[in-house]
Amino acid sequence: MLSVNEKGLEIAEEMMDWSEELKVKTIELKNGSKVIDCGVNESGSYDAGLMFTDICMGGLATTSISVQKVSEIPLAFIDVTTDHPSIACLGAQKAGWQVQVDKFFAMGSGPGRALALKPKHTFDRIQYEDEFDYCVIALESNAIPDEKVMQHIADECKVDVEKTIALVAPTASIVGSVQVSGRVVETGIFKLNELGFDTTQVVCGTGTAPIAPVVENDLKAMGSTNDSVIYYGSIALTTRGFDEELFKRVPSVTSSDYGKPFFKTFKDAGYDFYKIDANIFAPAELTVNDLDNGKTYHSGHLNSEVILESYGISGI
Amino acid sequence: MLSVNEKGLEIAEEMMDWSEELKVKTIELKNGSKVIDCGVNESGSYDAGLMFTDICMGGLATTSISVQKVSEIPLAFIDVTTDHPSIACLGAQKAGWQVQVDKFFAMGSGPGRALALKPKHTFDRIQYEDEFDYCVIALESNAIPDEKVMQHIADECKVDVEKTIALVAPTASIVGSVQVSGRVVETGIFKLNELGFDTTQVVCGTGTAPIAPVVENDLKAMGSTNDSVIYYGSIALTTRGFDEELFKRVPSVTSSDYGKPFFKTFKDAGYDFYKIDANIFAPAELTVNDLDNGKTYHSGHLNSEVILESYGISGI
Amino acid sequence: MLSVNEKGLEIAEEMMDWSEELKVKTIELKNGSKVIDCGVNESGSYDAGLMFTDICMGGLATTSISVQKVSEIPLAFIDVTTDHPSIACLGAQKAGWQVQVDKFFAMGSGPGRALALKPKHTFDRIQYEDEFDYCVIALESNAIPDEKVMQHIADECKVDVEKTIALVAPTASIVGSVQVSGRVVETGIFKLNELGFDTTQVVCGTGTAPIAPVVENDLKAMGSTNDSVIYYGSIALTTRGFDEELFKRVPSVTSSDYGKPFFKTFKDAGYDFYKIDANIFAPAELTVNDLDNGKTYHSGHLNSEVILESYGISGI
Repeated sequence: MLSVNEKGLEIAEEMMDWSEELKVKTIELKNGSKVIDCGVNESGSYDAGLMFTDICMGGLATTSISVQKVSEIPLAFIDVTTDHPSIACLGAQKAGWQVQVDKFFAMGSGPGRALALKPKHTFDRIQYEDEFDYCVIALESNAIPDEKVMQHIADECKVDVEKTIALVAPTASIVGSVQVSGRVVETGIFKLNELGFDTTQVVCGTGTAPIAPVVENDLKAMGSTNDSVIYYGSIALTTRGFDEELFKRVPSVTSSDYGKPFFKTFKDAGYDFYKIDANIFAPAELTVNDLDNGKTYHSGHLNSEVILESYGISGI
Repeated sequence: MLSVNEKGLEIAEEMMDWSEELKVKTIELKNGSKVIDCGVNESGSYDAGLMFTDICMGGLATTSISVQKVSEIPLAFIDVTTDHPSIACLGAQKAGWQVQVDKFFAMGSGPGRALALKPKHTFDRIQYEDEFDYCVIALESNAIPDEKVMQHIADECKVDVEKTIALVAPTASIVGSVQVSGRVVETGIFKLNELGFDTTQVVCGTGTAPIAPVVENDLKAMGSTNDSVIYYGSIALTTRGFDEELFKRVPSVTSSDYGKPFFKTFKDAGYDFYKIDANIFAPAELTVNDLDNGKTYHSGHLNSEVILESYGISGI
Repeated sequence: MLSVNEKGLEIAEEMMDWSEELKVKTIELKNGSKVIDCGVNESGSYDAGLMFTDICMGGLATTSISVQKVSEIPLAFIDVTTDHPSIACLGAQKAGWQVQVDKFFAMGSGPGRALALKPKHTFDRIQYEDEFDYCVIALESNAIPDEKVMQHIADECKVDVEKTIALVAPTASIVGSVQVSGRVVETGIFKLNELGFDTTQVVCGTGTAPIAPVVENDLKAMGSTNDSVIYYGSIALTTRGFDEELFKRVPSVTSSDYGKPFFKTFKDAGYDFYKIDANIFAPAELTVNDLDNGKTYHSGHLNSEVILESYGISGI
């Protein structure tokens, strides 16, 4: 069985070797664990964002950046392709682990989750778990985790703390923007799983989304980065098994909260995640090709108006 | 002289090393030959499709996947660039070898052709033949070749059977769809050669085409995969020597069979290839820049209506 | 500190190893210096063009080619991304060194400039200079430099002449077209520097531009290659520090010479560079995201009419 931590470790080691080029910094904590700062006290970079995304997906994806347009405005876009959607997206990339130790809090994603089995039901569902003596985890946070946090992660992953590596980037940072848009395929796989589809039947997937400009703070960035996927994320999936009614329910447009920047939705909900319609966390549009019957289905559409409003760019 | 089999072998070895990631399987036959199953009993993957294409082009191309649109429908597209169009396309990628042994039949393409010189006139024309002690061949087929087939290939290529490697993928498979769209530059080079142009004068070329969704069977897939190039393939070539009248005759639109999905054309011809106008096998459009006189010529156009009909997708 | 010559040397050595694939030729001069002919007596290639660009940017960029459209005409485009815009663009890529020895003349760019400090004020401004025992320089010229030219370069760079490598490509060549379009981000950084902005505050940048078809001679090619950036180059930058009034002045449209192919401007100026409004050397459009205040600004626009006129292609 493929090990997402083994593959993630290789990329993490490359990041440590090339830290000056990537504008990241490796911090070795007193207990021997390592933290790669990708945007807290370092500026980070596009390349660090791609490698952060690659690690989140357990080394089972290809990512790249190019310039594309949103309503005549040139923006950096990320392209993501994976031949292991279920393991890469749900077994690793999904932000399914809330790492909380004392005052430190971060959304945890990446390979480490497949050792700690966070959350257990997801791993049961995709019939995957990893076994490896190193743990690599990605944290969305504006603070560097300390020894206690890293020990907690090591314990949950059942690895030595010296063999625990965490990558950290705030939401409002270059790497933060890249890695959230890098979730464009994941949100589709996540939604399909929520709707009851067996995602191990998704054979491959590819997607693209604009990389949100960095906005003024993490709270607002949570809005704009998610909007990249919600209002302008496109994916194409190849599956076994087709259910037109189900696929129709995937795109973000099916959510009652669709139609305004996510930050507004969040604000209107009194900053209470549980009051937000979870259907909003999905790509703007998807195309699905079913290998079983040869049918292809398309649903959803892009929304340049909301995305430009979210990014704070006036159209031309 | 560059050896397309030497370069193809390197990629084939990588495929065997990474078979779990690529979702392919290496089968060692009793006579020591090897078959890489890229879609017969294995699912295959996008990455396997790119490497299959890279091997078909003798390692002399760069390929990648990204999401692009056909009339607002997001689809995976392949980009192909080569600096050796004549050798890569006609000396290797062209499906110029009908491998038939007993009941086994497959269209053969890739580096092995440059050892077996199939067909001889093509290699005379491009003044290329390979010398190498390994043979790598790509087969479009829904069956795994047996020892006898592999021995036949080895004999024709004048190599030991233990040094013979075949990649196999059915037309109706992920790898099948990728590798046919990966022929977008090749169809242009092929047509130029048919029209009498000396393709060794084509210095470099780049192209893009949508990757056909996999349809219900190989016969229908032969239609939809070819339509990717015929109705939505774009290429840009740099040549020495210009002939506007000749370039005008390259795009598929010049064929009397242009305007309907290829499967319909094939059906109307009673499934007899020889009744089809060969001019249809060409990219939808091309741009040619002539280094000799600095002129640039464009011909043909994309056709989103026919391509969506062929793929079975309703437009928006 | 990162060494642009160290990184450039690695790529140059790769070019020498793969010269047959790249269609370039390494010439070792009597004094031990090396010249890589990328288009004078060799045809060159797309891949050689990308590596030439990578070297020009001191190995601190990612580049790739894909087919995109200009008003329905498919053309090869280059994508360029750098996480070190100031060093890569001004410290290396800028054509800031006029190499003139006897009758030999070439615009010099690339890593060597960071050893010779050409021009000194640029390196003072970006607070960068390189230290390395090899020099790698890129020359835009239609002649191969001789021993005397290479000795001059070595002396200026304070390295042994045997450790001096020059890449050469004429303007009117495949590599020439690729490497000028590869300057799309650089022209933006250059203009920002000219306008007084501290470019060390530009954190990362990405851009795209069509690769000009090769036209009939170097003089005309100087026009069409520059037009790729001036009329159809798009960039997106992430900076620290925002000045809307200044960003408005970046795009080429702000130049009094905007609106006609650059060759015409040059001709109208009696082929005297000093009579041309320097504001024209800029990308057609840019998007700037400021990390300090979270604002994003867009300015300029593409101009397909002028670019097709410049390339000599009639629109559809």
